[in-house]
Amino acid sequence: MEKMTAKSRVVGVDISNDKTTYAIVDVRGNIIVRESFSTRDYPNVNEYVAELSKRIIEMTEANGGYESIRSIGISSPSANLMTGCIENAANLIWKGVVPLAAMLRDRLGMAVGVANDAHVTALGEQAFGSAHGMQNFLIVSLGYGVGSCIFSRGKTHLGNDGFAGEFGHTCVVPNGRQCGCGNRGCLETYCGSRGIVITAQELMQEKSDTPSLMRNIEHLTPHVIYDCCEQGDELAIETYRKTGHILGRSVANYASVMDPEAIIFTGGISNAGKWLFEPAHDAFEQHVFHNLKGKIKFLRSTIEDRERDVLGASALAWGIKEYSLFK
Amino acid sequence: MEKMTAKSRVVGVDISNDKTTYAIVDVRGNIIVRESFSTRDYPNVNEYVAELSKRIIEMTEANGGYESIRSIGISSPSANLMTGCIENAANLIWKGVVPLAAMLRDRLGMAVGVANDAHVTALGEQAFGSAHGMQNFLIVSLGYGVGSCIFSRGKTHLGNDGFAGEFGHTCVVPNGRQCGCGNRGCLETYCGSRGIVITAQELMQEKSDTPSLMRNIEHLTPHVIYDCCEQGDELAIETYRKTGHILGRSVANYASVMDPEAIIFTGGISNAGKWLFEPAHDAFEQHVFHNLKGKIKFLRSTIEDRERDVLGASALAWGIKEYSLFK
Repeated sequence: MEKMTAKSRVVGVDISNDKTTYAIVDVRGNIIVRESFSTRDYPNVNEYVAELSKRIIEMTEANGGYESIRSIGISSPSANLMTGCIENAANLIWKGVVPLAAMLRDRLGMAVGVANDAHVTALGEQAFGSAHGMQNFLIVSLGYGVGSCIFSRGKTHLGNDGFAGEFGHTCVVPNGRQCGCGNRGCLETYCGSRGIVITAQELMQEKSDTPSLMRNIEHLTPHVIYDCCEQGDELAIETYRKTGHILGRSVANYASVMDPEAIIFTGGISNAGKWLFEPAHDAFEQHVFHNLKGKIKFLRSTIEDRERDVLGASALAWGIKEYSLFK
Repeated sequence: MEKMTAKSRVVGVDISNDKTTYAIVDVRGNIIVRESFSTRDYPNVNEYVAELSKRIIEMTEANGGYESIRSIGISSPSANLMTGCIENAANLIWKGVVPLAAMLRDRLGMAVGVANDAHVTALGEQAFGSAHGMQNFLIVSLGYGVGSCIFSRGKTHLGNDGFAGEFGHTCVVPNGRQCGCGNRGCLETYCGSRGIVITAQELMQEKSDTPSLMRNIEHLTPHVIYDCCEQGDELAIETYRKTGHILGRSVANYASVMDPEAIIFTGGISNAGKWLFEPAHDAFEQHVFHNLKGKIKFLRSTIEDRERDVLGASALAWGIKEYSLFK
């Protein structure tokens, strides 16, 4: 393949416990080529970095040349953009603090940035998705946990230690459900995937006379509950209505302090669509500060789920100079 | 007095419904001279601007010369830094939208910035007070209302319309007390001055057998309740304990999303000292995200109440170039 001379591309890497995906991405967010390998096969992080480096070199040499790559961006759980480290990741095979950015930079001789999932998602949405060109917005990612990221004046707000955005662990029901973090009433215990299932189970107990398709399902998940909604199941609809109400009220508080142009929802649970977002939007408009009513857009991510993380990582790569100036 | 040639000073102006205070301030936050006049005497805003301009010229000519002034910063209720306007101020004599920055700039031929009380307080604390040199912090101002301002990466976070920071109107007790804004359970209805008095009255009713100094006082205020605390009054102490608990839990949510280095409390109610801040800090540490426990400083403003607004306005004046680049 022809060699490209200008540094017109980046490499985006997405690390999860199971799988590492890496791709060459151009400045418009086109994925030129993408591959993946098992993260779990490399419990020794030095061997992991050696493997990832070898694969990046092979991929880039076969696709426009190593010289065409400007920088590398990495999305990983528990990654801290300010330190370039993965810090005490509960969901990865490597324990403690791993200086991943420095390790990879030393091998490849190019700038490397790492950031956590929510930050990377926000960068991707701003570069290529629903938040394109916006200066002030919030990302709310709804999955097993509830994450968030703030854009302020066109940049991610990292906070003092890089821990900003823990929306899932804000207390939304005083003395409410017990959360894994040790506190009670965290948003995550109502609007994370486990919380939604608990709400469904509570409703089935409370309304023991109401028939429900959910009663016959052994392993309830937010997706199964969504399917029941689509079939008109009353308690399933009520489950998402309750979830949406708490979500909308909580997002309203967040918006009243941040005054964002839009709130962009991503993550598996955002696929529940109208069953979740209609009640959420109603509760949002009811609770948000009056000067902001009717002004803030509720948006779904427009980036495909399977592309979100590498595209976000590539957006981080494009912005690396700005971030390295930060600290 | 000797003429100064370099533009080494600014003028800070603080507008309230009653009074306009204006001062010449140097780069270290020393107030060279300060004067004031009645705002209410000028219901016509054109006449007000003419008077203020005349007074600024006179003051500067008598103190180092007009040429020594670099720019003018103004603190006003309902002022929007992004538009330079006072917008529909409920608490000022002028109605509608007043383009104050442009009006004054046209008369004086120098850069003028306006911003609301909370923003200006934050700028003052960062330049001259408790937040000196900090990049990420929160200001929480406790008075009749509860205001706030966010510093992100060394700059105020304004939000999309300049309305960011409405912490007082976040819902902290679902279906709680009715707020003037139309919603229920706003933080302000518990931790603003009226809310504190209501809590005291509720406690006196609930615990009708408990004696209290507060029962003999016709016109309860947060300050009077504080005096009762100092005399060991059980219900007065309980009033601030309850207020502090709600404040601490709410500030914890705010901190969990913002990850600030410090939270700086200003405003009259912050004078309640330990009666308010000990329970507030306990509730804060209990509720904040676990990675942040023990890390975030609780600080009181170190700027004197009577100097806060003109000093903040002068900090705005020093930073005007940065802000005018923003939009």
